[in-house]
Amino acid sequence: MTHADQSSADPTSLSPTARTTLGRKKNRAATDRATLHAVLDEALICHLGLVRDGAPLVLPTGYGRDGETLYLHGSTGAASLRTAAQDLDVCVTVTLLDGIVYARSVNNHSMNYRSAVILGRARLITDRDEKLHALRVLTDHLSPGSWDHARGVNAKEFAAVSVLALDLAEASVKLRAEGPDDEPEDVDANSAWAGVLPVKTVFGEPEPSADLAAGWPVPAHVAGRVSAPAAAAR
Amino acid sequence: MTHADQSSADPTSLSPTARTTLGRKKNRAATDRATLHAVLDEALICHLGLVRDGAPLVLPTGYGRDGETLYLHGSTGAASLRTAAQDLDVCVTVTLLDGIVYARSVNNHSMNYRSAVILGRARLITDRDEKLHALRVLTDHLSPGSWDHARGVNAKEFAAVSVLALDLAEASVKLRAEGPDDEPEDVDANSAWAGVLPVKTVFGEPEPSADLAAGWPVPAHVAGRVSAPAAAAR
Repeated sequence: MTHADQSSADPTSLSPTARTTLGRKKNRAATDRATLHAVLDEALICHLGLVRDGAPLVLPTGYGRDGETLYLHGSTGAASLRTAAQDLDVCVTVTLLDGIVYARSVNNHSMNYRSAVILGRARLITDRDEKLHALRVLTDHLSPGSWDHARGVNAKEFAAVSVLALDLAEASVKLRAEGPDDEPEDVDANSAWAGVLPVKTVFGEPEPSADLAAGWPVPAHVAGRVSAPAAAAR
Repeated sequence: MTHADQSSADPTSLSPTARTTLGRKKNRAATDRATLHAVLDEALICHLGLVRDGAPLVLPTGYGRDGETLYLHGSTGAASLRTAAQDLDVCVTVTLLDGIVYARSVNNHSMNYRSAVILGRARLITDRDEKLHALRVLTDHLSPGSWDHARGVNAKEFAAVSVLALDLAEASVKLRAEGPDDEPEDVDANSAWAGVLPVKTVFGEPEPSADLAAGWPVPAHVAGRVSAPAAAAR
């Protein structure tokens, strides 16, 4: 699960810089921005990497995408950002695990996955209109429909929250989506099962808050997220 | 979703060092090693953070735990490790997303999660016996039962793979596992639904490899992983 780059003049391609090149398994690199966007739009959390006192720090956090901009809740990174003289070097990684790949040999066991790695300098949003927009994008990603359903952000809350913006210009996508890649002699030997065990992220049945007043149906913007597998398991 | 530390002389406590302190929401920090182990044992992948050319890099990879040691596939980090004069500063973060928290206000929307952050210096394993043991731990984590079922690692494969070891001494665990934390006036207003939408990772129906010979049942060590919700959705 490493990220390689694509050298291409295609404006829809990813990773135009050398540092997104890791040099392994380039065949697993996706080359279009649509794939990048799809990974970012499907996943729910990212892992935000930054350097603190010379050492790496990786923290999970929420995010949202609007076009070629990723917005991040700034609570985790903002303390470091505020003390920096300039924008903060970050790496944002988003991973979707799709399956466990069982091969005939232990060595060829693998995972199916889609992952995006974005490098860049995160900018603390200070403009009021942009910050409000970013909060809406973050909310729409975490909980579509909540921006209209729930009470809006008041002045005190707005002042207390911080949001980072990161351009998607320098990004790479890697994916594996296939069966086991076994040695021919292992296939011939036929001495082990081989295949893929799919891994899925599903929503369970919504759980109303203990202090919710009686009479509330689960609103459509929540109930509609419950995926078929989870719903069928009720 | 930030990581705070616990200052305690309890030998089962986590994070004895200052740099695992982030200063926010300390009430969400777990204080025992059993919780750390449980998070590491339940999740399937980690995000490995390292510093390359002064910038952070975060890559998803597989791992396994044995006692107080985490083993990592070295393919991602090993190139950086081999060029370093000494062991590699890393941050390994493992996150389990458990739910989307819908509050009465947009601002109090949140996520339920469990996450572990481990800081330390990753060591490239060179001892033959330790490396073989580490490969077994990695295999047992990714695909329990495969070590005995599939063909073992041969000399060529063994030489080509690299494994990193990371001590769990410097680690923190954060979790949120509750309903929305709304303002009293928002609860009184009763103007929005509030609750938790659970998020679950499940295994789907095993998919035999296209080139698998006829007559193979799905072995128990694979079929047994299919969780109840996914199985019920067949």
